[in-house]
Amino acid sequence: MIEDILKRYTEPTVTTVCSHSSLQIFDGARKEGFKTLGIALKKPPKFYDAFPRAKPDEFMILDDYLEIEAQKDELLRQDAIVIPHGSFVEYMGADRFRELQVPTFGNRRVLEWESDRNKERTWLEGAGLVLPAELDLDEVDRAVIVKYHGAKGGASFFIARNREEIEARVDKTQEFTIQEFVLGTRYYIHYFYSPIKEDGYALSKGTLEVLGIDRRVESNIDEIYRLGSINELARVGIDPSFVVTGNLPLVLRESLLPKVFEMGEQVVEESLRLFGGVIGPFCLETICTPDLEFVVFEISARIVAGTNLFISGSPYADFIEPGLSTGRRIAKEIRAASELGRLAEVIT
Amino acid sequence: MIEDILKRYTEPTVTTVCSHSSLQIFDGARKEGFKTLGIALKKPPKFYDAFPRAKPDEFMILDDYLEIEAQKDELLRQDAIVIPHGSFVEYMGADRFRELQVPTFGNRRVLEWESDRNKERTWLEGAGLVLPAELDLDEVDRAVIVKYHGAKGGASFFIARNREEIEARVDKTQEFTIQEFVLGTRYYIHYFYSPIKEDGYALSKGTLEVLGIDRRVESNIDEIYRLGSINELARVGIDPSFVVTGNLPLVLRESLLPKVFEMGEQVVEESLRLFGGVIGPFCLETICTPDLEFVVFEISARIVAGTNLFISGSPYADFIEPGLSTGRRIAKEIRAASELGRLAEVIT
Amino acid sequence: MIEDILKRYTEPTVTTVCSHSSLQIFDGARKEGFKTLGIALKKPPKFYDAFPRAKPDEFMILDDYLEIEAQKDELLRQDAIVIPHGSFVEYMGADRFRELQVPTFGNRRVLEWESDRNKERTWLEGAGLVLPAELDLDEVDRAVIVKYHGAKGGASFFIARNREEIEARVDKTQEFTIQEFVLGTRYYIHYFYSPIKEDGYALSKGTLEVLGIDRRVESNIDEIYRLGSINELARVGIDPSFVVTGNLPLVLRESLLPKVFEMGEQVVEESLRLFGGVIGPFCLETICTPDLEFVVFEISARIVAGTNLFISGSPYADFIEPGLSTGRRIAKEIRAASELGRLAEVIT
Repeated sequence: MIEDILKRYTEPTVTTVCSHSSLQIFDGARKEGFKTLGIALKKPPKFYDAFPRAKPDEFMILDDYLEIEAQKDELLRQDAIVIPHGSFVEYMGADRFRELQVPTFGNRRVLEWESDRNKERTWLEGAGLVLPAELDLDEVDRAVIVKYHGAKGGASFFIARNREEIEARVDKTQEFTIQEFVLGTRYYIHYFYSPIKEDGYALSKGTLEVLGIDRRVESNIDEIYRLGSINELARVGIDPSFVVTGNLPLVLRESLLPKVFEMGEQVVEESLRLFGGVIGPFCLETICTPDLEFVVFEISARIVAGTNLFISGSPYADFIEPGLSTGRRIAKEIRAASELGRLAEVIT
Repeated sequence: MIEDILKRYTEPTVTTVCSHSSLQIFDGARKEGFKTLGIALKKPPKFYDAFPRAKPDEFMILDDYLEIEAQKDELLRQDAIVIPHGSFVEYMGADRFRELQVPTFGNRRVLEWESDRNKERTWLEGAGLVLPAELDLDEVDRAVIVKYHGAKGGASFFIARNREEIEARVDKTQEFTIQEFVLGTRYYIHYFYSPIKEDGYALSKGTLEVLGIDRRVESNIDEIYRLGSINELARVGIDPSFVVTGNLPLVLRESLLPKVFEMGEQVVEESLRLFGGVIGPFCLETICTPDLEFVVFEISARIVAGTNLFISGSPYADFIEPGLSTGRRIAKEIRAASELGRLAEVIT
Repeated sequence: MIEDILKRYTEPTVTTVCSHSSLQIFDGARKEGFKTLGIALKKPPKFYDAFPRAKPDEFMILDDYLEIEAQKDELLRQDAIVIPHGSFVEYMGADRFRELQVPTFGNRRVLEWESDRNKERTWLEGAGLVLPAELDLDEVDRAVIVKYHGAKGGASFFIARNREEIEARVDKTQEFTIQEFVLGTRYYIHYFYSPIKEDGYALSKGTLEVLGIDRRVESNIDEIYRLGSINELARVGIDPSFVVTGNLPLVLRESLLPKVFEMGEQVVEESLRLFGGVIGPFCLETICTPDLEFVVFEISARIVAGTNLFISGSPYADFIEPGLSTGRRIAKEIRAASELGRLAEVIT
């Protein structure tokens, strides 16, 4: 179906919702010679006027993101290829996004494996990654993080050091998971899997790249130490929160790169077995322990906002090609697939 | 007066004091084809020899920064346009700087609105920004930060969690303000307002840009957690301090950019109403709360040192033009104003 | 001896062990037109396939790094110049490395001054730097850091606040040093000393550059505050550790640059007096206190991993030359020395 649509396309228009990582998606698409279309609510967002290299050629203005479905024909008329990002999926709803009959970069089947915590765990454990232990309430014998289900963006977590603290604080009307709290330093690793590129770090099919690494900045946990320890503050009624407000750039010890690539490789190979592959950008959200082991607490199966740090390259992308952002890498993948007549392998 | 001087200028010499952000100011001026002049004490600072692209063409050597006034004629002879930065204003004194009869980039009237905490509050609240609540001693019912007046650079603050702690620690011989302590993550946003640029994010007059974001690194508060909580340490006589030693780069969630631009827009519009406008670079020093609201705790109405991170671009400037530092942006503004015969609109 | 070998070289091959900072060493060498050779164990590390600009032209595959000595003739046949980095020296052993009869960038005599804590202190104090006080157990009257001897990479430290805490925790079967714990913010400053470059920041012989600054990210100490204060955690048996997992980029206040260069200058001048000079890259690991003084807690006398942040320039290197990494700077030094017929001054 999408394959048939793609056959009718002449020159794709790179399309996304005006948020999250859209600036680099439009900038990267422009650099690779694509037309660009930004989907926004009510009126064109004025801030693009300040960023001429990242302003889409045209806007599609809606009253509600749910209207995207209704705009299907217009999107097809413009040869739109939709680039999903976290806000896109969140605004539209995962179910609706999955059904959208417009060509979409990446493999939408990844959504079911990513949005369901059990399936995500199946995937990542199947890939041989180390995940934080999940504990039942009566097994809690160490520091844990209690996560409410369905919450995204880090808003609904709390840290507890024993069963009593959980009992005292948890909202039992919501579903929650108790995860081991892993002490270490966080690295969010930006991968890119291409099923069509031949030269590079070879997988059973295609190649794997690392384009950058960031650390999320979470409010208020990341600066709460300025007022006191989280335990002292809990006693005066001030609780930590984990809302992502931004990102800062990092590099990892080079001696850890073999592990970093092995993790990415295993995640892709397992995804190929399970659902045809996590195509394009994905991110492993890791904690690097004092033993230099990575514990992976989540996967994001599309472009992450941390890539916004690296518009004109990163300490990793610079070894691949000058000026390579993840947004531009996506545009290059579409261009290459188009030239090879293999668009259907990267667009679903 | 300054306008008359400007009419006699043929080719401006970009001039500043050799500190703070002078490397990028000279580098940017050189890239835009300007001669450069560095003002220094005693002898030319040797460290410029290590940075050939940022070394001024000439030095003016003084025994004391107060001599700048006396050098007025020499500065005018060289067609000097002074770029003020935080150290420049601090070394010379705000009053003297205001009276200096040498063309200066930006609007010097901003000084009176920025250096007086009450006027600063009038300006920012008039712009609709959210500021930390100011409390009287007997109103203190939450964590607060106690700031001594006139202190710059972050040296004279302390954090207290209730009235008793303030009473125990405050030096009542100094004037001080008690401000609500806002928990969140800090973002220092680098804006640039041009009254003459037409294309871009349009204001009632001119356009607004965002060139970068940093977080200040404060000694010792930012690493005090390595020894214990600030409350534990207070008990053994170790106090936190807030002295800025450097900066690190950050990006904000893209979905917050509309707010970021609105804040900047309102600040400029209010400044146009109050005193003719905050021209050129300015910085809003914000805390992004877990509700994704910005609380603004200060404005710097000129180039800030955090821009030193972004000599060859930033994750924001890269969407405007390759290799754009704030120093270079200033040079471009002078060049453009000069070519349009509108120097008097950006230089006072 | 090495001098004689160098005379027989026609076109050097830049050679290093495939770890630590090898990506930028190979990338920089390639940019300066050198052939490159990567030494690895068992098989060529696959991750280089993902970074085509940093992949060495050839690999030398060993079963053990101790075999490097045995490969001497093959290395000489390839006109190899070895670039030592921390992992290289660690894997091979400092003694063996010192005796390796293959031309090596830098002055290997630095090893004896760096690996022995007493000699290191002699060097740095002789250079006039401020080091943390070293205390005997019965002198401990403030917060201290207890360091086991010979430990590298930060694994073997702990923090204590008084003598009792040390007594309770120290492993007396190991040798250890008790150092004053200095509160402040850490800056790792990347210097480069060239004995042959004439134009620039001049020393008694040659010139000094600053190429970048980073902060090490240490697991778990850097994120331990997310769970509680280190003292609270010690009570439940969770100890801080100081294992370096990566690095993040920083800049220092520009007004501190004169001090930064003076420190570097004094370190080089003292090294010239003591052992013929610390040639090429070195790093001062500093804490900037609230009084804006630098306390230096260690020197690394070769390329440090923090330079991995700055592959295409840094906020300091950008003022020297576009796209200058430390790896590339090393390659430029070899190229310049080669053209001047002065290789023996930078290679030992």
